[in-house]
Amino acid sequence: MRGYKFYDRAIQAFRDRSLLSKILVIGTVSSGSIVAFSDSRPFQSINGDSGQGEFKKKRVVVLGTGWAGTSFLRNLKSNSYEVQVVSPRNYFAFTPLLPSVTNGTVEARSIVEPIRSIVRKKDMDIQFKEAECYKIDAENKKVYCRNNEASNLGGKEEFALDYDILIIAMGARPNTFNTPGVVEYAHFLKEVEHALKIRRTVIDCFERASLPNLSDEERKRILHFVVVGGGPSGVEFAAELHDFVVEDLTKLYPSVKEFIKISLLEAGDNILNMFDKRITAFAEEKFKRDGIHLKMGSMVVRLSEKEISTKDTATGQISSMPYGMVVWSTGIGTRPVITDFMKQIGQKNRRVLATDEWLRVEGCESVYALGDCATINQRKVMEDITAIFSKADKNSTGKLNEKDFQDVVEDICERYPQVQIYLNKLQSKNGNILLKNTEEDPKKASKELDIEKFTKALSEVDSQMKNLPATAQVASQQGVYLAKCFNRMEQCEKHPEGPLRFRGTGRHRFRPFRYKHFGQFAPLGGEQTAAQLPGDWVSIGQSSQWLWYSVYASKQVSWRTRYLVISDWTRRFIFGRDSSRI
Amino acid sequence: MRGYKFYDRAIQAFRDRSLLSKILVIGTVSSGSIVAFSDSRPFQSINGDSGQGEFKKKRVVVLGTGWAGTSFLRNLKSNSYEVQVVSPRNYFAFTPLLPSVTNGTVEARSIVEPIRSIVRKKDMDIQFKEAECYKIDAENKKVYCRNNEASNLGGKEEFALDYDILIIAMGARPNTFNTPGVVEYAHFLKEVEHALKIRRTVIDCFERASLPNLSDEERKRILHFVVVGGGPSGVEFAAELHDFVVEDLTKLYPSVKEFIKISLLEAGDNILNMFDKRITAFAEEKFKRDGIHLKMGSMVVRLSEKEISTKDTATGQISSMPYGMVVWSTGIGTRPVITDFMKQIGQKNRRVLATDEWLRVEGCESVYALGDCATINQRKVMEDITAIFSKADKNSTGKLNEKDFQDVVEDICERYPQVQIYLNKLQSKNGNILLKNTEEDPKKASKELDIEKFTKALSEVDSQMKNLPATAQVASQQGVYLAKCFNRMEQCEKHPEGPLRFRGTGRHRFRPFRYKHFGQFAPLGGEQTAAQLPGDWVSIGQSSQWLWYSVYASKQVSWRTRYLVISDWTRRFIFGRDSSRI
Repeated sequence: MRGYKFYDRAIQAFRDRSLLSKILVIGTVSSGSIVAFSDSRPFQSINGDSGQGEFKKKRVVVLGTGWAGTSFLRNLKSNSYEVQVVSPRNYFAFTPLLPSVTNGTVEARSIVEPIRSIVRKKDMDIQFKEAECYKIDAENKKVYCRNNEASNLGGKEEFALDYDILIIAMGARPNTFNTPGVVEYAHFLKEVEHALKIRRTVIDCFERASLPNLSDEERKRILHFVVVGGGPSGVEFAAELHDFVVEDLTKLYPSVKEFIKISLLEAGDNILNMFDKRITAFAEEKFKRDGIHLKMGSMVVRLSEKEISTKDTATGQISSMPYGMVVWSTGIGTRPVITDFMKQIGQKNRRVLATDEWLRVEGCESVYALGDCATINQRKVMEDITAIFSKADKNSTGKLNEKDFQDVVEDICERYPQVQIYLNKLQSKNGNILLKNTEEDPKKASKELDIEKFTKALSEVDSQMKNLPATAQVASQQGVYLAKCFNRMEQCEKHPEGPLRFRGTGRHRFRPFRYKHFGQFAPLGGEQTAAQLPGDWVSIGQSSQWLWYSVYASKQVSWRTRYLVISDWTRRFIFGRDSSRI
Repeated sequence: MRGYKFYDRAIQAFRDRSLLSKILVIGTVSSGSIVAFSDSRPFQSINGDSGQGEFKKKRVVVLGTGWAGTSFLRNLKSNSYEVQVVSPRNYFAFTPLLPSVTNGTVEARSIVEPIRSIVRKKDMDIQFKEAECYKIDAENKKVYCRNNEASNLGGKEEFALDYDILIIAMGARPNTFNTPGVVEYAHFLKEVEHALKIRRTVIDCFERASLPNLSDEERKRILHFVVVGGGPSGVEFAAELHDFVVEDLTKLYPSVKEFIKISLLEAGDNILNMFDKRITAFAEEKFKRDGIHLKMGSMVVRLSEKEISTKDTATGQISSMPYGMVVWSTGIGTRPVITDFMKQIGQKNRRVLATDEWLRVEGCESVYALGDCATINQRKVMEDITAIFSKADKNSTGKLNEKDFQDVVEDICERYPQVQIYLNKLQSKNGNILLKNTEEDPKKASKELDIEKFTKALSEVDSQMKNLPATAQVASQQGVYLAKCFNRMEQCEKHPEGPLRFRGTGRHRFRPFRYKHFGQFAPLGGEQTAAQLPGDWVSIGQSSQWLWYSVYASKQVSWRTRYLVISDWTRRFIFGRDSSRI
């Protein structure tokens, strides 16, 4: 393979000079009307470890290339690890745009970036293997993987990898709640392949309904699109599908226009129930206006080839309706390999892996888990109340005075964020209010607390604990957090910077993970988006749509995907969406 | 489905105003360095037939939406037909760019345009059915079709269509020459799906070869890409693959770089043998320089799962080599439905349908065939020599003088293009030279010819006949030609404009189809293209590459695909090709 001529080298130089290409892209896109902010930081390569010749690198295995895994890899800067990445997908996908892929508002290729491109720029010791991990052996520190392609390339290829540190970021799979027929007949919306399949099926339905010799009944059935689940994905998909139908398909398939119907089924009382009530109300109103059929309190109990059966949660009555396509978007379930691993480590009967606040899997050494396959098992204050008290009671007087408490309140808040939240609610910063709170009559508030009073003061804080949602935002922040810990591992071993160890001595190496919520979008179609930002700030309409465009463009993982996504939006705006069945 | 609000309408207006959008696109692309010439003519809709209320429209069925079918539909302007289009693909694909799709230089979506979008703008009576015709019943003027999607949408849907006029433009399928194992293990390159599958497989090979625990032998096998067939498609694919490997993949998969090998097998003595020798020599030289392994005189006799066996055409020796992927690009074969139809109409043992010079299928009324599924059976002068002579001999004198001949030479040349070609070679315009040619001694040339001498004069012209190549250019010109005939059917019935009917009375309705060759490209990779233009004008290098870009951009079927193709080229130039496996 030769072929490096002047021309190649020129192109090469052009590509490698990221600044040059960035300027060029900015020049290109700035003629459009979308302003893309970017928070992408240049990759830094630290080769400073070269002096430590005998230093044995720790073998890190990362399972998964979703939000958690990729943001970990992107932010890892220390060269003291030998990283192996294992994932059945050799790319990272910008999943929040999957609903847009289902009907061609953006193309699948525009939201994916090869993981090799992402890590190549880092000039670090990172290897990628396209394979699926099917077994984790925590005892022997091994993961077992196989390549699933059954082609002439050699059938299933199996191999095992040894690790010193394992990072599980395998995400989740769709949850069918064991509803019969869902796996066989419904479409999911978690992977790029799912989105592409949905796109083809929508066109199939329209082509099929346009064939001659069909009864109107049959055409109606074929063009009945059912979305199950009123969460953000389901709602966005229904809205996107409606736009696609109204803006593009009815023009190309005018003869079947009258038969089209979109239904959205939700088992609860409202769609988007994790959002502010104003957003829910607006969305429901808009959907009704658009002619999207909303059916609340409707639980799917069975799917057959052509019919979907639902149970009314109020009356218990079961009814059926014919459908052409069902998209199942009801939440996430656990991957079998995780279930199996949980059994091994004594985490039976859980939905996802439990980790501590440093993302370490409970009951298992050197294993971290982040993203949708894990939740942080936030330690309760009440469990540690004695330890906290004795740590604060430095002089072992059995009493805690204001100063004692003042000295540890920061560590307490860091270790037990629910205390912080509780204090924020009481609008107090230093925790003195807790002391006062122990007395019904504030005037009587003593300056000292015994263990009983201390327990009473903190009795309510644990109710503030909430599990983090299974979103891209959480997974991504966890990845960044973990990478930063790994980058400073040696330094923090020597100089721990975390809170006091209440049940031990010294300090924790790192501060625990803390999630920062930046808000959430719910695109509702027709260039209308609802945005719920921190501080209960709600914005609905076209301005939020533009905010949505800006944020999603800026959050792209590479300049290539940013360019592609923006040019897809432009293309859609000028030419509409493509309805070719490929 | 409601939802037409101001915003929708604005977008709508924006889209329907083709001029507006064109200006915008020109504005967008003109900042790049590619100048895209366009020959796309605005679609004209002729609704002038509305006065003919009782006029019964003729039912035209068009089979196929490739180059021939689509250019027919695009150019049809008469509203006196009720057109049904049947094709298993609901889009037109710009097939010359398929090799570029195999490695992501352009995206599949960028080269396809939904057939419904193409016909919608025409405001004519054209219906599309996504189905495959599996039987043509010429006797009862019926075609039988079925939709092949076996999904919950209703299994195979079958229907029959009646026609008054049938246009067969179904193209061809890859020709395996019944080589064992080809259907099972080789990749073809005729459809968009083929190109996408090749793209995935190339990445698969690289991912697979990067797995641990493989022997170097095995890695070598997996990364051995074999292209069978040294025609333009095979050569272009090999060149594109080489570029993809050198410019993109070796950077992402540095550890397997040394194992990559591309082989091109050709049964003949040269690649690109339909091109000028200078081009062939340049291409072979360039491929050798690039490290592409060329193997001439090598006929594939068998494909097994991991090995390809070839026979040396000179020595007859059979040898085998291991491979990872084979792309089969050796020419075209006949579709079963065409074979079956040929049997019906007495065209057994032919490779493709025979038509006359007006593209009418021989031995079958009201059926036209064009594109790769047909060839024009050019009538020989010698078969009609008596008829021609008697037609020319107006006064039945048994002798033809110069003026008699002069009167019919134009019609002869039109009806029998081989005469024209022969005259061109002799550099004569009026045919007198033929008269002179009959005498060895030009001085003795008589002014009159009898039938014997006339036969002698034309005896060599039939050797000038050549079948047209099975290219997009031919198919497209045939589609345009047929549409123009259909547009002027009534007019030409009354006032025939074709040549004299030598074997009958009066004139033919239309002039026969005449192919105009505009030249041919052979992209050789590394921004080098060979171009052979009419008049033996040969150009090789980067300038031809830019000509190639311009021509391919201008020949796009819609402004949407033009925009997409150009923006894909730009994207490739800046960011390289994507290697995500989707």
